[in-house]
Amino acid sequence: MPADPLGFGAPGGLFRRLRDASGADWTGYTWHPFVQRLGDGSLPLAAFQHYLIQDYLFLIHFARAKALAVVKGESLAAMRSKATAVLAILDETLLHLKYCAEWGLSEKQVTLVPETMETVSYTRWVMDRGMHGDILDLEIALVPCTVGYGEVARRIMADTARMVSGNPYQSWIESYAGEGYQNMAEAAAHRIDALGESHGGEARFASLLRDFSMAARLEQRFWQQGLDAV
Amino acid sequence: MPADPLGFGAPGGLFRRLRDASGADWTGYTWHPFVQRLGDGSLPLAAFQHYLIQDYLFLIHFARAKALAVVKGESLAAMRSKATAVLAILDETLLHLKYCAEWGLSEKQVTLVPETMETVSYTRWVMDRGMHGDILDLEIALVPCTVGYGEVARRIMADTARMVSGNPYQSWIESYAGEGYQNMAEAAAHRIDALGESHGGEARFASLLRDFSMAARLEQRFWQQGLDAV
Amino acid sequence: MPADPLGFGAPGGLFRRLRDASGADWTGYTWHPFVQRLGDGSLPLAAFQHYLIQDYLFLIHFARAKALAVVKGESLAAMRSKATAVLAILDETLLHLKYCAEWGLSEKQVTLVPETMETVSYTRWVMDRGMHGDILDLEIALVPCTVGYGEVARRIMADTARMVSGNPYQSWIESYAGEGYQNMAEAAAHRIDALGESHGGEARFASLLRDFSMAARLEQRFWQQGLDAV
Amino acid sequence: MPADPLGFGAPGGLFRRLRDASGADWTGYTWHPFVQRLGDGSLPLAAFQHYLIQDYLFLIHFARAKALAVVKGESLAAMRSKATAVLAILDETLLHLKYCAEWGLSEKQVTLVPETMETVSYTRWVMDRGMHGDILDLEIALVPCTVGYGEVARRIMADTARMVSGNPYQSWIESYAGEGYQNMAEAAAHRIDALGESHGGEARFASLLRDFSMAARLEQRFWQQGLDAV
Repeated sequence: MPADPLGFGAPGGLFRRLRDASGADWTGYTWHPFVQRLGDGSLPLAAFQHYLIQDYLFLIHFARAKALAVVKGESLAAMRSKATAVLAILDETLLHLKYCAEWGLSEKQVTLVPETMETVSYTRWVMDRGMHGDILDLEIALVPCTVGYGEVARRIMADTARMVSGNPYQSWIESYAGEGYQNMAEAAAHRIDALGESHGGEARFASLLRDFSMAARLEQRFWQQGLDAV
Repeated sequence: MPADPLGFGAPGGLFRRLRDASGADWTGYTWHPFVQRLGDGSLPLAAFQHYLIQDYLFLIHFARAKALAVVKGESLAAMRSKATAVLAILDETLLHLKYCAEWGLSEKQVTLVPETMETVSYTRWVMDRGMHGDILDLEIALVPCTVGYGEVARRIMADTARMVSGNPYQSWIESYAGEGYQNMAEAAAHRIDALGESHGGEARFASLLRDFSMAARLEQRFWQQGLDAV
Repeated sequence: MPADPLGFGAPGGLFRRLRDASGADWTGYTWHPFVQRLGDGSLPLAAFQHYLIQDYLFLIHFARAKALAVVKGESLAAMRSKATAVLAILDETLLHLKYCAEWGLSEKQVTLVPETMETVSYTRWVMDRGMHGDILDLEIALVPCTVGYGEVARRIMADTARMVSGNPYQSWIESYAGEGYQNMAEAAAHRIDALGESHGGEARFASLLRDFSMAARLEQRFWQQGLDAV
Repeated sequence: MPADPLGFGAPGGLFRRLRDASGADWTGYTWHPFVQRLGDGSLPLAAFQHYLIQDYLFLIHFARAKALAVVKGESLAAMRSKATAVLAILDETLLHLKYCAEWGLSEKQVTLVPETMETVSYTRWVMDRGMHGDILDLEIALVPCTVGYGEVARRIMADTARMVSGNPYQSWIESYAGEGYQNMAEAAAHRIDALGESHGGEARFASLLRDFSMAARLEQRFWQQGLDAV
């Protein structure tokens, strides 16, 4: 494992505290064998394909969960930002379909793939947390995905075992290591810090950590299903 | 106005702090002219009838909101207690129908009465707060009704202008002044105190006060519609 | 009242059937005195100002309700379209603020105006229908506003009493009479027809009509509050 | 496999049509090897223990989903019936704890067992269907569990391979084969038939079948996790 890359969010802020407290759940997710093999280029294509198709199905529900943050209607600015995020995620699904098209899979074929249990459990758990908690609960369920992928990319980029040229997963890595995604992940971590202040994060820390860690473990399973598919 | 009756909940607890901070919104609700005239027996029957029928329609949605607290699934004990409360409220609707029957109104006729704007605005606002906040947000939207009626009864009982014998609203007053309701209201106030501790009430005070005061104002309108009906 | 302008949606389609069946609830909304006086230019400015500020507050919740249609996640196309609609509504709030700025009211001042009971009852009722019904129930609660404003504009344009030049409300009228809004309203009516087919509208007609008519009555109250304010 | 036991619900009713159309998804659930080995007494105790603890965790969310049917507030009778069902399910969790106590597992220990992916995926999927569809969608997500266990018991009782005396799972079998549960399951099937009539089940058949079959497959996984645990 590479030296721990600098975390997202402010030191002492809620995001950083949750990340650090979630320990092995977090590192088991952000430095999962699937991630390491994306970085060193040794991941079997079939594993990646399985993952990417499920990630496409995942994103549909992730967009629904972001829309739920609009419904919660915290502020006009937050509503605008979240509605924009919904459209961005729906655009991201098109990128996934482009990968699939390169493998000879049409949109029709992709949407016929059944959701795995890993996909169902993660996405519906997020929706349920969002429906039954407040905006902080919802964002805590969402943030391990958003910021975690930013950390995944940082870890891969910092890894001495990284396949620097000819890595078949280079475009995937770049999409998360790039400035656009990294800035967005940083903003998401800071948003958690701010929501922690306004929504009693201190008093709710134990409960928030439980959800944060659960999401990290569900992310581990999500990677693992790719490895299990080959 | 009578000397302020002893409040519910612990001094310094979240409920008492919200009640005191909501000021005129709270007293305008718990010592509304409608309430005073229930106590001194001068309330026109038509005003009470209008109120009671709308309260019947209100209770249906109040039961739905309690059920939402079960959905939020905080703990098995809380789920059990809330599901029991749903059944108690549904039983309370039968008491309302009994009053109506005495006035020659059948259940069928009562359910054909359209909900007033006062009823729709209050009930759906509670549901919306409950759907989009956490259990504390939901309980804060519900508690002004539950505990407020307890305080209403205490205020009437302490009022020197109270019609002690022959008050046509005696049975209504007794149902809220009685030990059963008073204990339940006290428990509801203490529950708010406890949720305040566990769910960051301190940091969320301004937002919770906004909702608490809104509910108190919606209660004022609810009484007022009775007076306006005659 | 002008000759009934041609309705939206296909003849025999669900939208047209609901509109026709809602009778006086619908015409009382789409040809409300407030509307007539917008058309003939006799509406007091204070009435319009009261209305427009409440409409600003209304739109925030209307955007939330549209976001709920994204959450329901019917199809990627529907999700994209609804998320775009959320952003369009949030932009519409800026137009409202521009009117307010012309009257010397800052955004800060507008957002401090409390929601009236008319605004609370309508918006939270829509949210509640949306939360507890399916996509058809939600769209039925939303559509009287969307298409009704299109019909309002058609009625004003066809009215012989219309103030053709110098009407102080000309820009408001044009924004709904314009091709952009009219096409959007037409599409909304056709969407109801399609959802009726796919979601059992025939069997659910009585229940859908109840909601459609309720929304129309809530719209009447929404106009009326403007007249009552002067 | 035993001769197909007589199904629940009216012939030609929505429940029976969905059950028959779900084909192998349904029989793979109601005559799963786990079920067969409950019947012939050959199921390893560890498999049953794993299952029962997860079923305890499952029931908590099943009770939440029933409470959601109260929130949907279809009718006072339905609300009362569902609130009563919530309490019945919460009582059922006590029976599970009694089994666990016999195995030396305290309530504390049971509640510390993490939910498996099979449990999370099934329960949160039901909640999500319920939150985003109407009462029919919610009941369709719930009914394969309720009625399916009734059919499971009928199949076991009709199985020639059944261990008639000394079956360690006899009390479990009896709780579902008994008149109380069987009547409740029959009522649940008839309720689906009635909701199908009132809520457009005919037009929505394809979509309802998709959910019904999904629930049946999630039930298969739920049994399977018991076998996988040993």
